[in-house]
Amino acid sequence: MNIKRISNPRIVIIGGGFAGVSLAKVLSKQDVQVVLLDKHNYHNFQPLLYQVSTGGLEPDSIAYPIRKILQNYSNFQFRLANVLEIDPKNNKVITDIGLLKYDYLVIASGSETNYFGNTSIETNSMSMKTIPQALNLRSLILENFEEALLTSDLQERNALMNFVIVGAGPTGVELAGALAEIKKGILPKDYPDLDTRLAQINLVQSGNRILKEMSEEASKKAEAFLEKLGVNVWKNTRVSNYDGKVVTTNTDVVFETATMIWAAGVKGANIKGIEGADLVSRSNRIIVNEFNQLKTYSNIFAIGDVAQIETEATPYGYPMMAQPAIQQGKQLGHNLKRLLEGLPLEPFKYKDKGAMATVGRNKAVVDLPKYKFQGVFAWFVWMFVHLFFLIGFRNRMIVFVNWVYNYIRFDREARLIIRPFKKKLKSDE
Amino acid sequence: MNIKRISNPRIVIIGGGFAGVSLAKVLSKQDVQVVLLDKHNYHNFQPLLYQVSTGGLEPDSIAYPIRKILQNYSNFQFRLANVLEIDPKNNKVITDIGLLKYDYLVIASGSETNYFGNTSIETNSMSMKTIPQALNLRSLILENFEEALLTSDLQERNALMNFVIVGAGPTGVELAGALAEIKKGILPKDYPDLDTRLAQINLVQSGNRILKEMSEEASKKAEAFLEKLGVNVWKNTRVSNYDGKVVTTNTDVVFETATMIWAAGVKGANIKGIEGADLVSRSNRIIVNEFNQLKTYSNIFAIGDVAQIETEATPYGYPMMAQPAIQQGKQLGHNLKRLLEGLPLEPFKYKDKGAMATVGRNKAVVDLPKYKFQGVFAWFVWMFVHLFFLIGFRNRMIVFVNWVYNYIRFDREARLIIRPFKKKLKSDE
Repeated sequence: MNIKRISNPRIVIIGGGFAGVSLAKVLSKQDVQVVLLDKHNYHNFQPLLYQVSTGGLEPDSIAYPIRKILQNYSNFQFRLANVLEIDPKNNKVITDIGLLKYDYLVIASGSETNYFGNTSIETNSMSMKTIPQALNLRSLILENFEEALLTSDLQERNALMNFVIVGAGPTGVELAGALAEIKKGILPKDYPDLDTRLAQINLVQSGNRILKEMSEEASKKAEAFLEKLGVNVWKNTRVSNYDGKVVTTNTDVVFETATMIWAAGVKGANIKGIEGADLVSRSNRIIVNEFNQLKTYSNIFAIGDVAQIETEATPYGYPMMAQPAIQQGKQLGHNLKRLLEGLPLEPFKYKDKGAMATVGRNKAVVDLPKYKFQGVFAWFVWMFVHLFFLIGFRNRMIVFVNWVYNYIRFDREARLIIRPFKKKLKSDE
Repeated sequence: MNIKRISNPRIVIIGGGFAGVSLAKVLSKQDVQVVLLDKHNYHNFQPLLYQVSTGGLEPDSIAYPIRKILQNYSNFQFRLANVLEIDPKNNKVITDIGLLKYDYLVIASGSETNYFGNTSIETNSMSMKTIPQALNLRSLILENFEEALLTSDLQERNALMNFVIVGAGPTGVELAGALAEIKKGILPKDYPDLDTRLAQINLVQSGNRILKEMSEEASKKAEAFLEKLGVNVWKNTRVSNYDGKVVTTNTDVVFETATMIWAAGVKGANIKGIEGADLVSRSNRIIVNEFNQLKTYSNIFAIGDVAQIETEATPYGYPMMAQPAIQQGKQLGHNLKRLLEGLPLEPFKYKDKGAMATVGRNKAVVDLPKYKFQGVFAWFVWMFVHLFFLIGFRNRMIVFVNWVYNYIRFDREARLIIRPFKKKLKSDE
């Protein structure tokens, strides 16, 4: 597609996630002016959110100040802003801090939880896509145990100690494993008066295997790991509703629970103004070509979770994960450089580096392009890779110290209700 | 005063701060049943709150799960509860989770910010007594800088970058020093577009010297340190009001500021039901004898900040600080043991271990009973003592790693707005 070459252009990037940050790195030394917008002042390492929820890590150790990333990029500006709308005809972005003009726009706004239109599930379930959400879940889990101690109603106590996780992708599997370890390692010590056998962890999956993006081998092994940890895995079970008390499914399986965690779907975090032929309505993702360029507007690009690169080989785009986002950010950076140099753009080529998930202590599954393995070694690989992709030396150190400590002591000391979720205190209590 | 000796008594402790926890340790192996109540599920190391506010530390590293402290105390129960009222005539505590009977009651509810009845200051100023408050202040400081970038109104920008700290006790002094270091080390790198000279840190003190609980030598040196860091120290200046925009004082000094931090007073966090002759109305502290026992009720004790041990030598009680709280908790523990053994109680004797405050990198003042010193060595002593008093090996490790990192890199990477204070997002965004 034709695209105008502009010298020293103003590029606006929406979103400082994996895609936006990886693009920023490439553009840092180019003859372009960049404005990076994000509604948070930090980059968030989503793959470790479940450890924040389960008291294994501090939120601050998986977040990194965006301004710190950009400190040495003299051609960058960061603005803490919520983007309200894009006005592509006039090359403008409308935000809660005002209007911004752009020459090229890059949408890297990521993804959000997809409730598939079920407002009852949306209202009553917990999600884990952001740090505040992860902290809310941490508070709720701990508040549930505290409440379970107080009630003499056995049914209520059961519901408080019953956890239902919907969706057995990496997030659901990792969370289920961590909760099972809390049940085994923390509950008996912290709550000697509670019958910990009541604590049930249920992982519910509509398909016929867990971790369906991974190999059959990984799925099987992960399921065996979960069962060894005492997690109830429900396959071929589709959750139909949750009213805050009862989870109903398409089978006769029913759960009475105070806590349903919805990890069963994501959708693009598209922004108002991009619509029609540019959008997949089902998944809310922006359709782009192999240069991450929109159909309708040649100076607008989308990368990462929000972008769906539609080619014959990838009719539904690439998986909404960190790797495609990082690679697309990098590739778009190179293409914008080429554009400025008057060279033709090069199509995005995804390099599948594999996938992995951890189930718990000494238990992980890893699918590399050439090797598949599971168990202790996989677990070390999982930890090494996650430490490596964390941004910042301090964060790596802190996460490492926590992991070593948690491993040696079978402990999770960040089991802190800093801001209660259920019981409302004043904002500063 | 007479007190009934009860075998295997039920002791209720209100508060898991320094006093409550130090008492708990002594009672852990006694023939008593203890219920510890706190509205938080963690013990909070208040002396380091200012580092949470200024992005130097994670909140989770200065908090410690109370249940973890009590794990090995088989005679203890913890309940997460807000105490609403004490009914001393019927030996009952009324909480938001129900009624509790006690044989002996220990009030260790600590202290809260004292606004001396000025509701305008209470509404508009920030405080730093709890972790959520410290996090609110962290968010506000960072939001101010983000906003300052956006406004073209110079007066508004000045107000956003002007910080007024009222009260030059250790909290005020340490916060002022940390803000000055942010101005010097972080602002120019993170906000190259802002004229950092606009950032003013004002420390306002009604008396004629700062750190008035410490030696003259410490006061002088701390003031010199602050001035070197560029903090404006205003002595003999009493703040009279703050409407959210302008701080007025008893002199002609006036500050236009978006951020006033009130560290000028604390009062006892007394609980409804303890009143009259048992209470100092001015400071809201509970009057106790040298056995930490109330005048009116011989089976109720108060320890720590909320307790005022009235003797001839201490007409206003001991300072509201960690050391008297820890020592009173310990002493009351021994006295309760003696009581159960039929021995007479022993009066509390305060062992003054000195006081210290840090102003910033390589700068602290220490008053020990026999030595007074300031500077680099004092700074190392300050760090060592604070690490030592932190509860938990993990917390000490994490704080230590952060300190080493921050020292070497002149950095504070927890400058994260996890939950905005000004701009209201949804609770989970």
